[in-house]
Amino acid sequence: MSSRRNFLRTGLGIAGAGVAGLGVAGAGVAGLGWVDGNVKTEGGGKGEIPKDLHLGIAGYTFLHVPMDQGIAMMKRLAVDAISIKDFYLPLDSGADKIAQVVGTFNAAGIRIYGAGVIYMKSEADVDRAFEYAKMLGVDLIIGAPNPELLGYVEGKVKKYRIRVAIHNHGPEDKLYPSPVDVYEHIKGLDDRMGLCLDIGHAARAGADIVKIVNDYAPSIFDMHIKDLAVISRQAKPIELGRGVLDIPGLMRAVKRIRYSGCCSIEHEMDMTDPYPGIAESVGFFRGVLKAEG
Amino acid sequence: MSSRRNFLRTGLGIAGAGVAGLGVAGAGVAGLGWVDGNVKTEGGGKGEIPKDLHLGIAGYTFLHVPMDQGIAMMKRLAVDAISIKDFYLPLDSGADKIAQVVGTFNAAGIRIYGAGVIYMKSEADVDRAFEYAKMLGVDLIIGAPNPELLGYVEGKVKKYRIRVAIHNHGPEDKLYPSPVDVYEHIKGLDDRMGLCLDIGHAARAGADIVKIVNDYAPSIFDMHIKDLAVISRQAKPIELGRGVLDIPGLMRAVKRIRYSGCCSIEHEMDMTDPYPGIAESVGFFRGVLKAEG
Repeated sequence: MSSRRNFLRTGLGIAGAGVAGLGVAGAGVAGLGWVDGNVKTEGGGKGEIPKDLHLGIAGYTFLHVPMDQGIAMMKRLAVDAISIKDFYLPLDSGADKIAQVVGTFNAAGIRIYGAGVIYMKSEADVDRAFEYAKMLGVDLIIGAPNPELLGYVEGKVKKYRIRVAIHNHGPEDKLYPSPVDVYEHIKGLDDRMGLCLDIGHAARAGADIVKIVNDYAPSIFDMHIKDLAVISRQAKPIELGRGVLDIPGLMRAVKRIRYSGCCSIEHEMDMTDPYPGIAESVGFFRGVLKAEG
Repeated sequence: MSSRRNFLRTGLGIAGAGVAGLGVAGAGVAGLGWVDGNVKTEGGGKGEIPKDLHLGIAGYTFLHVPMDQGIAMMKRLAVDAISIKDFYLPLDSGADKIAQVVGTFNAAGIRIYGAGVIYMKSEADVDRAFEYAKMLGVDLIIGAPNPELLGYVEGKVKKYRIRVAIHNHGPEDKLYPSPVDVYEHIKGLDDRMGLCLDIGHAARAGADIVKIVNDYAPSIFDMHIKDLAVISRQAKPIELGRGVLDIPGLMRAVKRIRYSGCCSIEHEMDMTDPYPGIAESVGFFRGVLKAEG
């Protein structure tokens, strides 16, 4: 029996999630190792940024930011992990181009930990996504494959040993409005098929984000974090801490399940001038983490 | 017996501080009332920024930032209180100029809650500082009067009913290296003479910032908050959360004593490009506050 089903069936809760989580942690060794999150400052000392949860950036954040600027922002903010979007590295890139972009991020101390969100509407799209991820050296695709392709995707997951985290996209989305919808589609499939929990879209779709973390612990491979000013279908994402989402509760849940993936800020406002908003969200995340001990 | 001495002598602790704190809160009604800290966002909703501690900006932060930009930064970050420095409003400004600057801040929803840090090396400097504060409509001068002027300052405090928070400036400072030094100078004086606790300079001078808050509760009128990468005499201030200062512990202490002043971020690095650093510190403060409930 898979660890996912075992977790859900027996209700082992925290202990079960911890064991199941090892699968995720074990899978996470692909690519560059985690760089040291400490940062040199003007004071010449080492910062003490809490590191028991990995903070990352969801690549969509940089939709209107040139890559060199995005990298510079991350470096200054001492955020060392990104899931890359195709506008920084097209899905049909060759090995040379991929190596060059990976090298540019790595030189700045940033690990590309996943690719996505990648939409897959055909088997050819799936083929391309897995080849791309393989060349990138990541073990994680954040994706939205059409449901009829999930069996085909599962075959690729087994062949490539690359996980797929399916991204929930809110109430308007025809495919995966809520993480519950994602889970219903993947629950019988290979354990390496899981969720990228987008907490903003999840809350807009009526999901309780803390419950989702607790219920689907072993299947959560990635997270897109943001805040909502109000919980409603139409709410737009805002800076962490400005809204009503229970970020401290979420982070406690995520620590409790021994989540080993990234908590990636997806900043989707002021997208032509996102730096202060990203910085505020980064600070908020670290503040909650520090206060939670 | 003054509330300050009562607090220290009887060890009433939290209750004593709470009572004493009323004096501070009562004095805080000068000038514009607190504006609503909620912010309109792109989502059109209201944020839920925790408000049980008032976040502010220490004016020195904007040393190299034009006033319109400083105001724009604060507005976007939804920080609504500032202690103004003389480079935004010279100490010899006339009433018209002062009214114009106050009006500009107020129009942006920002309250000037204090003036300083103002150095006072002569009686004429003291006279000017109090006239300036009076015209500003604030009830708080953050200052560093020469110790031999403290009796003269006390007379002005009584006459103007304007408090003075003396700022500790670190181990190199001849006058007030540590908050302990400040306290030793003001402990026999009018209760409206107190401290602006600069936590960075305090830690550099060997003070335990949480103990300072607890010990001097009724006398703390203002705070300059920042972080230090290491605790050493030479450490330079950095973004909140990047360093080793116990900000969560500090904030718990500050809440426990029912502090009614501002916790003002004083950002003193990257001063020609401070926006992301300020934003990160603002986020961190709010994250700690939210997590501490």
